[in-house]
Amino acid sequence: MPYVNIKITDENVTSQQKAELIEGVTELLKIVLNKNPETTVVVIDEVSTDNWGIGGQQVTERRKKGK
Amino acid sequence: MPYVNIKITDENVTSQQKAELIEGVTELLKIVLNKNPETTVVVIDEVSTDNWGIGGQQVTERRKKGK
Amino acid sequence: MPYVNIKITDENVTSQQKAELIEGVTELLKIVLNKNPETTVVVIDEVSTDNWGIGGQQVTERRKKGK
Amino acid sequence: MPYVNIKITDENVTSQQKAELIEGVTELLKIVLNKNPETTVVVIDEVSTDNWGIGGQQVTERRKKGK
Amino acid sequence: MPYVNIKITDENVTSQQKAELIEGVTELLKIVLNKNPETTVVVIDEVSTDNWGIGGQQVTERRKKGK
Amino acid sequence: MPYVNIKITDENVTSQQKAELIEGVTELLKIVLNKNPETTVVVIDEVSTDNWGIGGQQVTERRKKGK
Repeated sequence: MPYVNIKITDENVTSQQKAELIEGVTELLKIVLNKNPETTVVVIDEVSTDNWGIGGQQVTERRKKGK
Repeated sequence: MPYVNIKITDENVTSQQKAELIEGVTELLKIVLNKNPETTVVVIDEVSTDNWGIGGQQVTERRKKGK
Repeated sequence: MPYVNIKITDENVTSQQKAELIEGVTELLKIVLNKNPETTVVVIDEVSTDNWGIGGQQVTERRKKGK
Repeated sequence: MPYVNIKITDENVTSQQKAELIEGVTELLKIVLNKNPETTVVVIDEVSTDNWGIGGQQVTERRKKGK
Repeated sequence: MPYVNIKITDENVTSQQKAELIEGVTELLKIVLNKNPETTVVVIDEVSTDNWGIGGQQVTERRKKGK
Repeated sequence: MPYVNIKITDENVTSQQKAELIEGVTELLKIVLNKNPETTVVVIDEVSTDNWGIGGQQVTERRKKGK
């Protein structure tokens, strides 16, 4: 029954990597809290680097500086 | 003043269906809690089936199996 | 499989009212989008009126003015 | 360490405006709560006017009426 | 830089279990996407069973029926 | 009409500080995007330091180490 939302920047994440995140988080909740995988929901949001800020700056700008 | 966020998979939801969800949720909050519809906000997120997991699996994979 | 998050101010909402919101939203998603109620998740967040702002003001202040 | 999520309608917001929102919110958290800008995360979601409801209506419809 | 939100029912989760969830998710994002653990944020929300619905019903009610 | 969610750790934030966050964010959205303050919603979530992780660790642990 847990609900997990993963927000990451939209930078060429493959479908295989998403599958691994979903499987891994679901497994983690089973191991740590004995949650039933059948009703564990995972939603991945890919966010444009223009729309993600850290350190007061867009990630787009940080990437240009090699961060 | 309530805020409602509805997350569903991105599978051909029509504008008319979205209108019905918005109207229905707003009405429900008026009936149950007497909330003023004028300030009830509803946001619908349509999520790619690659990015939605349940049972440890992407919905894309589940759809292939007829689930 | 839908996930719905309802945020309301924390002002004496009863367990019965919460049950009605959960039942109502789940039914709405079945009617409009044919979503299976068994995997529809609804989470209600009750937020302190000090922590909710509208019109640039805390709801606590607005309530004092009879809004 | 704060996390801020800003949801707005998807109506021609420029990259420059997004940069200003990110900078402004990060600065605000520094001034009010002395939060370290280096770990303040801001995520902006732009939502289709079809998917945003207020007053029980899609914003798309409200725009047509000049609201 | 990823942001992860884990919502679970408020049913005696220990601080140790929370630490394991935080560590596990952060590690997963490092393994799968090579994300820097130093800026990975994880927020756990514990939700009252009265406020969590699945199958159109409060979890409180489901627990009484042994589900 | 914007919706802003601010998540911070639950560490003695005063009602006055919350009022300043709400006023500041609402003003920022008016200045940058000309959004109407009357319908701008701000919700502040205060999260226990046990439930907030960064760098793979609970903030509670980090505070003990003077971080």
